[in-house]
Amino acid sequence: MNDKTFLMIPGPTPVPERVLLEIAKHPIGHRSSEFSSILEEVYANLKYVFQTKNDVFMYTSSGTGAMCAALENLINEGDKVLSLVIGNFGNRWAKIAESRGAVVEKIEVQPGEVIDPAVLKKRLDEDINKEIKIVTLTHSETSTGAANDIKALCALIKEHGALSVVDGVTSVCAMPCKPDEWGIDVLISGSQKGFMIPPGLAFLTASEKAWKVYEQCKHPSFYFDWAAHKKSVQANSTPFTPAVNLIAGLNVALKMIKEEGIENVNARHKKHAMALRKALKAINMKLLVENDENASYAITSIVPPEGISVPEIRKALKNDFDIVVANGQNQLKDKIFRMGTLGFVCDRDLIASVGALEAVLYKLGHKFNLGDGVKTIIEELSK
Amino acid sequence: MNDKTFLMIPGPTPVPERVLLEIAKHPIGHRSSEFSSILEEVYANLKYVFQTKNDVFMYTSSGTGAMCAALENLINEGDKVLSLVIGNFGNRWAKIAESRGAVVEKIEVQPGEVIDPAVLKKRLDEDINKEIKIVTLTHSETSTGAANDIKALCALIKEHGALSVVDGVTSVCAMPCKPDEWGIDVLISGSQKGFMIPPGLAFLTASEKAWKVYEQCKHPSFYFDWAAHKKSVQANSTPFTPAVNLIAGLNVALKMIKEEGIENVNARHKKHAMALRKALKAINMKLLVENDENASYAITSIVPPEGISVPEIRKALKNDFDIVVANGQNQLKDKIFRMGTLGFVCDRDLIASVGALEAVLYKLGHKFNLGDGVKTIIEELSK
Repeated sequence: MNDKTFLMIPGPTPVPERVLLEIAKHPIGHRSSEFSSILEEVYANLKYVFQTKNDVFMYTSSGTGAMCAALENLINEGDKVLSLVIGNFGNRWAKIAESRGAVVEKIEVQPGEVIDPAVLKKRLDEDINKEIKIVTLTHSETSTGAANDIKALCALIKEHGALSVVDGVTSVCAMPCKPDEWGIDVLISGSQKGFMIPPGLAFLTASEKAWKVYEQCKHPSFYFDWAAHKKSVQANSTPFTPAVNLIAGLNVALKMIKEEGIENVNARHKKHAMALRKALKAINMKLLVENDENASYAITSIVPPEGISVPEIRKALKNDFDIVVANGQNQLKDKIFRMGTLGFVCDRDLIASVGALEAVLYKLGHKFNLGDGVKTIIEELSK
Repeated sequence: MNDKTFLMIPGPTPVPERVLLEIAKHPIGHRSSEFSSILEEVYANLKYVFQTKNDVFMYTSSGTGAMCAALENLINEGDKVLSLVIGNFGNRWAKIAESRGAVVEKIEVQPGEVIDPAVLKKRLDEDINKEIKIVTLTHSETSTGAANDIKALCALIKEHGALSVVDGVTSVCAMPCKPDEWGIDVLISGSQKGFMIPPGLAFLTASEKAWKVYEQCKHPSFYFDWAAHKKSVQANSTPFTPAVNLIAGLNVALKMIKEEGIENVNARHKKHAMALRKALKAINMKLLVENDENASYAITSIVPPEGISVPEIRKALKNDFDIVVANGQNQLKDKIFRMGTLGFVCDRDLIASVGALEAVLYKLGHKFNLGDGVKTIIEELSK
């Protein structure tokens, strides 16, 4: 049906009506007192959502822009960067570091796996001359649905003395993520994920320790420059003309998150992801991330049953039920499909999508007890 | 009145209702075939508006992002850049070049003045060893309302052999600007100006000659990288998650521009700007840019009469008539105010704003024949 599409991809995610209506208003001047009042609220509520006492910068960019905003303000040519890669987005950190002339070493695991803290500890212990300046890592890996134990990993990085630079694009809002408490030095995220607004804005917060490294950066990014953004945050302003309409929408969305409470938002995502995983298992579907402990609360990657292809499943879900799920990326293309449970998602959406998936698999000849998925998800959601 | 604000600033500018409604729709997946179809139309129509056979790249960023996208893909440390500065935004080119380690020389003029081609010719003739690699310049300088003779200046730069890198943020759409015909090597612009959509997107097109310099760039920008964007344009895609909703709006706005015809859009802006200038002179107002030949068709800067302050004028226009005009920037703050005639502006808007300005100046005690401004603008618009 026209206008009935429901996105269950890991971004863009569904947007509340009141946010869309705010975005649809005529733009206001970005140097007006009205807009400054909006920025004041936005900057305060971003600190609440990011659970930090430090400023949170807002960039008009994709999430990748915020990744550049992290590394381009820290790296000098020849710096040593250790990249912990559990998927495409972990690899993107490495590419950005290389683009600035860093010497990049990777610890890489198979898709669906996460970084073992013991492996990281061993590598950092070997670095007796403290040559590693920055460790990049991913909280929730959007390409696989695996999630690192950021708390444990960042503690090890802190002990070593390097900076931890964390991609929280699909984790902030969806999973507990506490930069100050856990010692994360740089944390970034993007708007079209847990923040419930369309793509176009990205966020970054940095620790005092990260600021000291920034001060040694010879050619910090002009567009993403931390000092310029800090000055603007403190003046309830922005350095350049920002995406005014998206920010007006963000203001509404952040208030919704605050009203629900960030812990409750985290808990809702956990409940949804775990219920979905259990329901998928109940209909004999294989998950790429086998262990619940390593699973993202934002994305679940599913391996199709033998004899049924990913394109068939995606096409039927779209054509029969107007539900869009994501394909795998790069080497995982057509090997998995990904369901997002990220942002503006309620229990009804979970029941509907599990039911629709059952219908599709039933039609395509998958062997399972019809109804067991919906039965399981209802049981789990009722807990 | 609430919801009656009319922006006469040089960006953000008024946005057509059909564009706002498009932006308000639920986001669609950025890797879907629906979005790919939108991108196909957008990329084709951007080439039409930019009047170039080369690809036009689209960035999710402020206009300043596109300025970075120009220089960060061209400059190596130590490169010599000549910046022609006629205001703040000309100076921004110099700052970005410096941030990448370039050696920057400036030719600077007083606010409201433009670059004399003879002065540029003299400097380029002196550069017998061809040390100058890039010349940055501004077409329509948003901070003053002056406009360079880009055609003449870029011809001189081409003759010398350096690359011309042009800020067309407030000129593309508003003024004739023909990169292929005039030999502009890199031209950038932003969405919240002549493109009639809210801020958040920016554009860049580059000549074959510029691509050769890009290929020698040791550390091209990751986020703004030309090669990644070229590959994406050719696949009707984007390298990273773009501002999907703004692009859907842009698609509608570009069709409106195409329907009107780019030459007609240019002519409308010229007619409006020239009519406004004549009307302002008719009510004894002093213009910062004295000569019509040097005036932007997008912004007009006005010096307030003695004894009447810029804040008084701006406040009265806002309070009494819900019209927002811009203050001057930096050293021009409170010395001028700026009226935008950029983007989605019709004859009625011109009559209304000149009438409102007359009312405000009348109240504030300025000496002029009440009605002469509106009389003049009607005469000019009727021609």
